[in-house]
Amino acid sequence: MIGAFGGVGTTVALGIAALRRGLSSDIGLVTALPLFDGLALDAPAQFVIGGHDIRRTNFAKTVQEFQNRSNVFEPALAEPCLPDLEEWSANGRPGTVQSRGQSIGKLADLPEVTRRETTEEAIRRIQVDLSKFQERHQLDQVVVVNVASTEPPFPLSAIHSDLAQLQSALGDYPEAGAAGLLPSSSLYALAAIDLGLPYVNFTPSLGASFAAALEFAKERATVVAGQDGKTGETLLKSVLAPMFAHRNLRILSWVGHNIFGNRDAVVLNDPRNKESKIRTKDQIISQIVGYKPQTHVSIEYIESLDDWKTAWDHIHFQGFLGVKMALQFTWQGCDSLLAGPLVLDLARLALYARRHGEVGVLRHLACFFKSPMGVAEHDFFKQWAMLAEYVRGKKAEGE
Amino acid sequence: MIGAFGGVGTTVALGIAALRRGLSSDIGLVTALPLFDGLALDAPAQFVIGGHDIRRTNFAKTVQEFQNRSNVFEPALAEPCLPDLEEWSANGRPGTVQSRGQSIGKLADLPEVTRRETTEEAIRRIQVDLSKFQERHQLDQVVVVNVASTEPPFPLSAIHSDLAQLQSALGDYPEAGAAGLLPSSSLYALAAIDLGLPYVNFTPSLGASFAAALEFAKERATVVAGQDGKTGETLLKSVLAPMFAHRNLRILSWVGHNIFGNRDAVVLNDPRNKESKIRTKDQIISQIVGYKPQTHVSIEYIESLDDWKTAWDHIHFQGFLGVKMALQFTWQGCDSLLAGPLVLDLARLALYARRHGEVGVLRHLACFFKSPMGVAEHDFFKQWAMLAEYVRGKKAEGE
Amino acid sequence: MIGAFGGVGTTVALGIAALRRGLSSDIGLVTALPLFDGLALDAPAQFVIGGHDIRRTNFAKTVQEFQNRSNVFEPALAEPCLPDLEEWSANGRPGTVQSRGQSIGKLADLPEVTRRETTEEAIRRIQVDLSKFQERHQLDQVVVVNVASTEPPFPLSAIHSDLAQLQSALGDYPEAGAAGLLPSSSLYALAAIDLGLPYVNFTPSLGASFAAALEFAKERATVVAGQDGKTGETLLKSVLAPMFAHRNLRILSWVGHNIFGNRDAVVLNDPRNKESKIRTKDQIISQIVGYKPQTHVSIEYIESLDDWKTAWDHIHFQGFLGVKMALQFTWQGCDSLLAGPLVLDLARLALYARRHGEVGVLRHLACFFKSPMGVAEHDFFKQWAMLAEYVRGKKAEGE
Amino acid sequence: MIGAFGGVGTTVALGIAALRRGLSSDIGLVTALPLFDGLALDAPAQFVIGGHDIRRTNFAKTVQEFQNRSNVFEPALAEPCLPDLEEWSANGRPGTVQSRGQSIGKLADLPEVTRRETTEEAIRRIQVDLSKFQERHQLDQVVVVNVASTEPPFPLSAIHSDLAQLQSALGDYPEAGAAGLLPSSSLYALAAIDLGLPYVNFTPSLGASFAAALEFAKERATVVAGQDGKTGETLLKSVLAPMFAHRNLRILSWVGHNIFGNRDAVVLNDPRNKESKIRTKDQIISQIVGYKPQTHVSIEYIESLDDWKTAWDHIHFQGFLGVKMALQFTWQGCDSLLAGPLVLDLARLALYARRHGEVGVLRHLACFFKSPMGVAEHDFFKQWAMLAEYVRGKKAEGE
Repeated sequence: MIGAFGGVGTTVALGIAALRRGLSSDIGLVTALPLFDGLALDAPAQFVIGGHDIRRTNFAKTVQEFQNRSNVFEPALAEPCLPDLEEWSANGRPGTVQSRGQSIGKLADLPEVTRRETTEEAIRRIQVDLSKFQERHQLDQVVVVNVASTEPPFPLSAIHSDLAQLQSALGDYPEAGAAGLLPSSSLYALAAIDLGLPYVNFTPSLGASFAAALEFAKERATVVAGQDGKTGETLLKSVLAPMFAHRNLRILSWVGHNIFGNRDAVVLNDPRNKESKIRTKDQIISQIVGYKPQTHVSIEYIESLDDWKTAWDHIHFQGFLGVKMALQFTWQGCDSLLAGPLVLDLARLALYARRHGEVGVLRHLACFFKSPMGVAEHDFFKQWAMLAEYVRGKKAEGE
Repeated sequence: MIGAFGGVGTTVALGIAALRRGLSSDIGLVTALPLFDGLALDAPAQFVIGGHDIRRTNFAKTVQEFQNRSNVFEPALAEPCLPDLEEWSANGRPGTVQSRGQSIGKLADLPEVTRRETTEEAIRRIQVDLSKFQERHQLDQVVVVNVASTEPPFPLSAIHSDLAQLQSALGDYPEAGAAGLLPSSSLYALAAIDLGLPYVNFTPSLGASFAAALEFAKERATVVAGQDGKTGETLLKSVLAPMFAHRNLRILSWVGHNIFGNRDAVVLNDPRNKESKIRTKDQIISQIVGYKPQTHVSIEYIESLDDWKTAWDHIHFQGFLGVKMALQFTWQGCDSLLAGPLVLDLARLALYARRHGEVGVLRHLACFFKSPMGVAEHDFFKQWAMLAEYVRGKKAEGE
Repeated sequence: MIGAFGGVGTTVALGIAALRRGLSSDIGLVTALPLFDGLALDAPAQFVIGGHDIRRTNFAKTVQEFQNRSNVFEPALAEPCLPDLEEWSANGRPGTVQSRGQSIGKLADLPEVTRRETTEEAIRRIQVDLSKFQERHQLDQVVVVNVASTEPPFPLSAIHSDLAQLQSALGDYPEAGAAGLLPSSSLYALAAIDLGLPYVNFTPSLGASFAAALEFAKERATVVAGQDGKTGETLLKSVLAPMFAHRNLRILSWVGHNIFGNRDAVVLNDPRNKESKIRTKDQIISQIVGYKPQTHVSIEYIESLDDWKTAWDHIHFQGFLGVKMALQFTWQGCDSLLAGPLVLDLARLALYARRHGEVGVLRHLACFFKSPMGVAEHDFFKQWAMLAEYVRGKKAEGE
Repeated sequence: MIGAFGGVGTTVALGIAALRRGLSSDIGLVTALPLFDGLALDAPAQFVIGGHDIRRTNFAKTVQEFQNRSNVFEPALAEPCLPDLEEWSANGRPGTVQSRGQSIGKLADLPEVTRRETTEEAIRRIQVDLSKFQERHQLDQVVVVNVASTEPPFPLSAIHSDLAQLQSALGDYPEAGAAGLLPSSSLYALAAIDLGLPYVNFTPSLGASFAAALEFAKERATVVAGQDGKTGETLLKSVLAPMFAHRNLRILSWVGHNIFGNRDAVVLNDPRNKESKIRTKDQIISQIVGYKPQTHVSIEYIESLDDWKTAWDHIHFQGFLGVKMALQFTWQGCDSLLAGPLVLDLARLALYARRHGEVGVLRHLACFFKSPMGVAEHDFFKQWAMLAEYVRGKKAEGE
């Protein structure tokens, strides 16, 4: 995992350790639904966790932070898992911060992270880490998942559409500069793809979502999926907007106000990083209803809420004979706990796809993402139908 | 329409008059969605309205009541429609109140309504009204829709499963008694079915939802649909519960508190009538998620809200590692305005089906109902898929 | 404390232990506000806890229950306090259940509680417990606070207005019957008053709120206070209703829907016990605004919420030129944690008053109660002014 | 009224016309409360309306706009009042836009408004308008109330503290420039004060809230009051924050999100104008609780909501033993209808004070304002007590 020691990464690690010990049920894990029975997915307990991070920390520290600040990860569940967490923390390696914006850069406190190196050197360094991790643990497969903080939007140019040109330029760019060739998320993506590993982007950062990266994935016969895990307010949008559409109720305005206070929120408090997030959160309603109601999305850092993402949405709509009505909702979800199991789902499904010879973007995973790669459909239930059809198809094939 | 001069019936009448004059858009009308383009439905402007009611009133009075109390039906829209409403009000005939409960009975102020007659006589009286209406207006088709207040639950016995037995008993029961053979909603249903007319039940009352009535519908080669229009809180339940199911988030409790103050609410304030409503509102979550969370539904008569049904739902759910989270919503909808266009949709679709030789329960209309006849599926999107498939099929057949 | 091992009692015990050890701040304690600086109140750390309960349990068990079910009392705070809790648990004595309703009766699992004894014997037994507790711990003062579950409303008769008559009848009534002379809450009250101890009723149960008891308190020169701690939704009512009054905005309806799932809620799920609670919750708006808007209060047992009382209130009001507007609020409070510090406040203030020669009902404590004894005022800010004036007066007297 | 033809001004005009005809009750009018019985206030029916505006419009047009867009001012109430509105519309005069910001400037469509003139000339022009209005209608008294859109914050310098210096500079500044000597709101204020008329500022604009203006008011022996009418979300803050303070519950964060879509919102959508508003909305919590919780206030223009200001507030607070709890509220108020009656209250109370020889800032009107001039107290109930005490004092004096 990239950004392994953050809230999401730590939830994944603790979750796998807890499932392994039978300390927790598989609630929240999509791939634990009956639909997936009979599909040859890797068991959660088989996973070994490693990762990159830019901060000097570990899983146990994050667990404690969450216990103190967000009142989750109860001791009875966390304590027996600490040995696993300690072992997996030792797999942590220094990451890279190229073009991730000042707000992320400020969090970095590891010397390797800010060391001057070319883009190519950074990629090689990551690949060495990945290979050593696989070797040391004698793993048949490795999947790379980006769960790091959101980067600012990265402007693409012609070079990002041309794999050959991009590859030949990798050595020319310094890694520790503001305006690099590629943002960090894409360095990890290229590193993974080059090794033929599946790459999943759980964030709105660029990652592998540009033409040259997709070409590279096909060349290396591996799979990619993304972007931006759909865990709370946006999930609800993709569930409720189809209802208005099917009832022919006209949405006049949809206002969404998000408040939370974890590290992710600190980074999103930077207007440049926030912009990436709002883009993916704000597009989906128009796509679903087929017209453009007024929309407003705000995200504010409110320290006291910690990981408890609270969203208030006000949907103003028009019914028969022009009458205006309203739906409001308040969502109070612990963000990392919502994201964690989906990361594990995606890892299982990406490895499955890679193992079964799929190549390129995994379109059937659209229901997991705010901004699904290669899929214009945002209606959650249509996205779900794509996944269900895929699973049933695979099962019919005898897999 | 049965209960024609109530809020829903009046919305239908005013809506058709307004659509005819181009005074209103078709927002809220499901059958106006692009999906239905090319399906040979009757145009809203072709409809002529008639109906039964138990109160001495008319469409114009109800319009005024709604303007004063609920602040809808703005004068600029309503005034030009008054001539139509006056004409259609003249089509109103006295209804029947057998076994509808004291709360409905108390509303009746027409002598014909409370006159002593046998069940058979009441049915014949309704049939005469229907036939004269059709003749007078030279109508090719007539559809009967129940939009009256909710009756108390009616206990069924063996006789309701045996058409022959039921028919031979019709003459033995007095109409104006508390414990009759059938509730009023079913008298209208039998009257309509006997004449081969489609019967749609927009309420949770018994109507045609018992074995003998369904047998009768087949015998007379007509169609029936119901029960209980899904307009607000329950619609949301059928939309949100599948989201929790697909994300494997466990619903711990789902509390729904409904407040409103129209005539329907006065009737539902009677615990016996309320029971019918709560039954249809409360069953759907378990069906969708496959287990039984604690649920609570309350409906309270709050006079000041009039037709503005306000619902607060609190959904408590469990995510990964046992963490409890919450979703709350507040729905503020004008109930008659939500129901009205659906009634028109159902009338169009029932006439279409009847015309195309369908017989019995119209299962593809499940998405319109809280308690769809003949369909166990409550997931709104699966119900919608049933409707969409039907429409596409018909269009493919060249209908 | 009566009902000592419940949620409120346990919060008081744990709170005092934590304050003693400097493990917690005094947030939530009204008497810790600067207003009270210089008033000679007993320090929280000086208190020794004892009490009666009808269940075989102890403080440590309740702490664990709350940790597991309501996610409060974090281990780092609770564990160092366990020795105190163990010591204080040993002060627990079997209570009495006379006329407390079947729902409370069913919770009783101690043989002494259900043993047959006359009302007089029950009172004597309680007094012996109180005296032994005081002796054993060499306490200068003792205060009795009722934090037990709500009893059903108790019908008063002439005998309850005549102290002599009541006293002479005490020996005639069996304690373990359904229809006794007095409910349990009043037995404790009489026991305490007879010993000259202050008695505080934090519940809506009868306690000392009848003429003979008040006469007795004057005779024994002690003080009483109550009833029903104002901790959440009702507190908000007493804060918001004055705003509407001062702005001349007319409240049309006020609907309050309360859901929670602790032991108190189990008892309130019994309609008879619930009635007591709703009475005190429902009266206050009319008193404040001077007219009677439609009000509705419901309380439902929703198991998954445990101690987290969640209330949704919908206030519909009319402004200038007749326009209807709305205010809604959702309160999410942990009930025992809100009540606990107020119990400690009341104990400190009742002891202070007793020590300074006050007698009878402590009217200046009205702001703590939903149904303040001897005070018709429900406006929270006027009640607060009464308390502030009292404190300032006492400080001015050099107390 | 300054900005007379806006929503608030039109509500005042329509309200007075309706009260005059007995078409509406006095709900919403604070001075209609029993407290004010016996105080010699001018009757609403005695008022004649005039005003300045920068747009070419009139009361009837605004009434129609509100009917169409916000669904208020029902025809049965508005139509009989149209003659009054027409008469009063004829009293409208072109205003001034100096230093009101581009967003307000853009709304101006009257040639006189944007004509080049010095500050002194603008003031004289306003004074001529005021004097002619008084003469033409033979009025004993005139009061000037600012109900125009919010100006951007205006930077003060030494000259604004020195009346003589300011007066001698008035002729040197052009009126139609961006960076004038004073913003428009202050030109009206100086014009009114100079004529000895009371000036009330219902907006956060500068108005008379600087040292030289206050000195001038004393010199001319007239009264001023302001700033920024407290009508909705901020009113609730000033009501709820004291509750948290008195219960010693620590506010961790208070987030307020305001959405609405009237002309005021268009102006506030300009970040410079919005800043003035947020300043007055955001300060009050700290003042009341005595420490600085994290606060966030946002105001967004959402067109479909028109005059229906909808606010969602999320208050996160800490109780005993550190437990975090939450209160959320949603306010749905029609802003002009809330403000209108308060404007009339202020006019009545300012005229009363002027008539009774008061001079300078009317501190007892603090409860009407978000940012009360000369008063640091924001607790609504303490502010209310100031008003009540004033009224009782005046009544005791036999006034």
